[in-house]
Amino acid sequence: MKAAIMGYGTIGSGVYEVLDKNCKSVEKKAGEPIEVKYILDLRKFPGSPVEKLVIHDVEQIVNDPEIGIVVETMGGIKPAYEFVKRCLLAGKHVVTSNKALVAAHGTELIRIAAEKNISFLFEASVGGGIPIIRPLVESLGGEEILEISGILNGTTNYILTKMSEEGWSFEEALKRAQELGYAECNPEADIEGYDTCRKIAILTAVATGKEVNYEEIPTQGITKITSMDSSYAAHMGAAIKLFGTSVNKDGKIYLEVAPVLVDAKDPLYAVTDVFNGILVVGNMLGASMFYGSGAGKLPTASAVVGDMISAVRFGDEPEKIGWSSEKLEVHPAAELSRKYFARFEGSERAKKEAVAAAFGDVKFVTLEGTDEFAVLTGEMTGEEFDAAAAKVGGLRQKIAARL
Amino acid sequence: MKAAIMGYGTIGSGVYEVLDKNCKSVEKKAGEPIEVKYILDLRKFPGSPVEKLVIHDVEQIVNDPEIGIVVETMGGIKPAYEFVKRCLLAGKHVVTSNKALVAAHGTELIRIAAEKNISFLFEASVGGGIPIIRPLVESLGGEEILEISGILNGTTNYILTKMSEEGWSFEEALKRAQELGYAECNPEADIEGYDTCRKIAILTAVATGKEVNYEEIPTQGITKITSMDSSYAAHMGAAIKLFGTSVNKDGKIYLEVAPVLVDAKDPLYAVTDVFNGILVVGNMLGASMFYGSGAGKLPTASAVVGDMISAVRFGDEPEKIGWSSEKLEVHPAAELSRKYFARFEGSERAKKEAVAAAFGDVKFVTLEGTDEFAVLTGEMTGEEFDAAAAKVGGLRQKIAARL
Repeated sequence: MKAAIMGYGTIGSGVYEVLDKNCKSVEKKAGEPIEVKYILDLRKFPGSPVEKLVIHDVEQIVNDPEIGIVVETMGGIKPAYEFVKRCLLAGKHVVTSNKALVAAHGTELIRIAAEKNISFLFEASVGGGIPIIRPLVESLGGEEILEISGILNGTTNYILTKMSEEGWSFEEALKRAQELGYAECNPEADIEGYDTCRKIAILTAVATGKEVNYEEIPTQGITKITSMDSSYAAHMGAAIKLFGTSVNKDGKIYLEVAPVLVDAKDPLYAVTDVFNGILVVGNMLGASMFYGSGAGKLPTASAVVGDMISAVRFGDEPEKIGWSSEKLEVHPAAELSRKYFARFEGSERAKKEAVAAAFGDVKFVTLEGTDEFAVLTGEMTGEEFDAAAAKVGGLRQKIAARL
Repeated sequence: MKAAIMGYGTIGSGVYEVLDKNCKSVEKKAGEPIEVKYILDLRKFPGSPVEKLVIHDVEQIVNDPEIGIVVETMGGIKPAYEFVKRCLLAGKHVVTSNKALVAAHGTELIRIAAEKNISFLFEASVGGGIPIIRPLVESLGGEEILEISGILNGTTNYILTKMSEEGWSFEEALKRAQELGYAECNPEADIEGYDTCRKIAILTAVATGKEVNYEEIPTQGITKITSMDSSYAAHMGAAIKLFGTSVNKDGKIYLEVAPVLVDAKDPLYAVTDVFNGILVVGNMLGASMFYGSGAGKLPTASAVVGDMISAVRFGDEPEKIGWSSEKLEVHPAAELSRKYFARFEGSERAKKEAVAAAFGDVKFVTLEGTDEFAVLTGEMTGEEFDAAAAKVGGLRQKIAARL
């Protein structure tokens, strides 16, 4: 089997490395060797061992009947979408790590692959090296999935971990993340939650079998989280994590990307630093968690190679991993009843009665030496919370809580 | 597709329940409905809704051409082995949750299924509802697996958790586990590590593709763990867990079932109570962990139903999950260099020089009010440890340590 890699950046070069280092086990599991014939990139990589494989025109891949499988690790929509579509239409399996592409054009690409009886696989687009998409489809096949909640972005998890464990400010933690290469110069996609949004959209689409428009998912990042929030969380024996959340309640799917306060007993609490963790709750299975390196060259490349092996092995009987063109109705998770952690300016003593009148029974939390106080509310919708908070006045922060 | 369930105990009745409750999603994913036609059991279940399905003779299943898939949830070897073999030879897919059967006769049953071009699947035999066998084969297909370390038995994990968190003695914790139904009246298979042994043998066989004779795996349970050990562990910010361990070092596979002292930063540290957790380290992927309910009626049944869906969906192109008849050479994990936690009678002061002479540089740990002390050694083999400990004298406990 001859392969082409489109995009020889971090992930693409990792794929080449994994195929090279693990060639024996890849051949054994795929049933035949997988050899990289082309590497498509704008650059030339002079002096590199792959120099002779480098091409600059996608036509060479599309028109070469020897190429049976194409890896897309360019990222972004343009020109990845056009290139992938052309490869699929030419009857070549495609494996991608590109969550932006899968979230935006997955429905069409999955449909083309099905029509052509080939594989379009994207395990690496969510959770890096953590096997999650295939287990959702295959191993949990007998389950009604009730919830998928994931720490799906390593950069934001690193920032929140450092704010909590080291007391760093958001800005300090972000700067350190950039120095370490975890965060990009323009960190918007990570810290505003856009990356997590695309990933939870993909997971929800796979679990429900329906198309999810990620633009409809209420998405909030971590830029408003302060070290004061982290101090309260630590004081309460909890931690703040950025969650992508998808809840199936009575057949309706509620979605959100937002910071969440999680208890130390929650399996996701221990997911720190750049690691990812994905909690899946099934109606029969109960809670199950998948944990590992959510990003990074080799873990992500390993997931790509796992998909390549499946594509080659299953040949013209491809795995059915994907979703239909039926659109999922997206409900905001704020419509669900849940607890909230909230900070108010002023003193607990002065506002105690107002809080009780607005929220009923709450748990108060006060950190010494501050001009404010916090509460942990009972279960309520986002709208109910907002109405109650307006009555109290001086709201500084609200975060959904799993305590 | 008509199915038969052999053994209507906890798991078997759970399978019936999952198929019933999730029939829509099962039909959608399998591509056709799965209907239970027979339930084979010695009992009659008068008045139960399944009463009419109950049969007592396996011949009815074997000889009924309508039956395409058989679930084996009887447990044990006799008569499960004979029944499963006959069903496979009759061309029926078999799905089992029976780790004793798979560990003892997996090689033969996998071979028969391959010859007959049908599925023999056993996801539920390890880790209950946690997807682990299929991810090892499929998602991690591009990896060289360097290590599998698992907390694979919920009963012993519950006992160790209670000894650690509540300060209970082993006997108290076992009694409570029995009262809660976690441990059987005869708890030997759990507390002596036999259950974990079969499970790590199965995982190792799947990962290496070779037959593992579980009787060759050095196996030690938790009966020698005392609350004194738990106190030391807590003092060191660590915990004792029963691990099934399989390490691939330079192509040799080292196996063991034994208690291990794990650090609070280890992803397996947070796996408490009856939960299971399985750490998989790949040469490219790094560490990944799978966490969930390792036992229990519905989680395990859910894994069985997941396998049933795969068997039906793949039909006569079965998944290749299993191993060959080639035998794996089992090396004892004690041959590996690793740290040990060890308790000695006497005082640190009196024996400090002897310890230094025998072990070199160690970390001493002393709990006040005891007539003993403990050390954390540097890396050494089991043989080296034993030689050094003999020189010091008065060894009370040794536990491999991951600190």
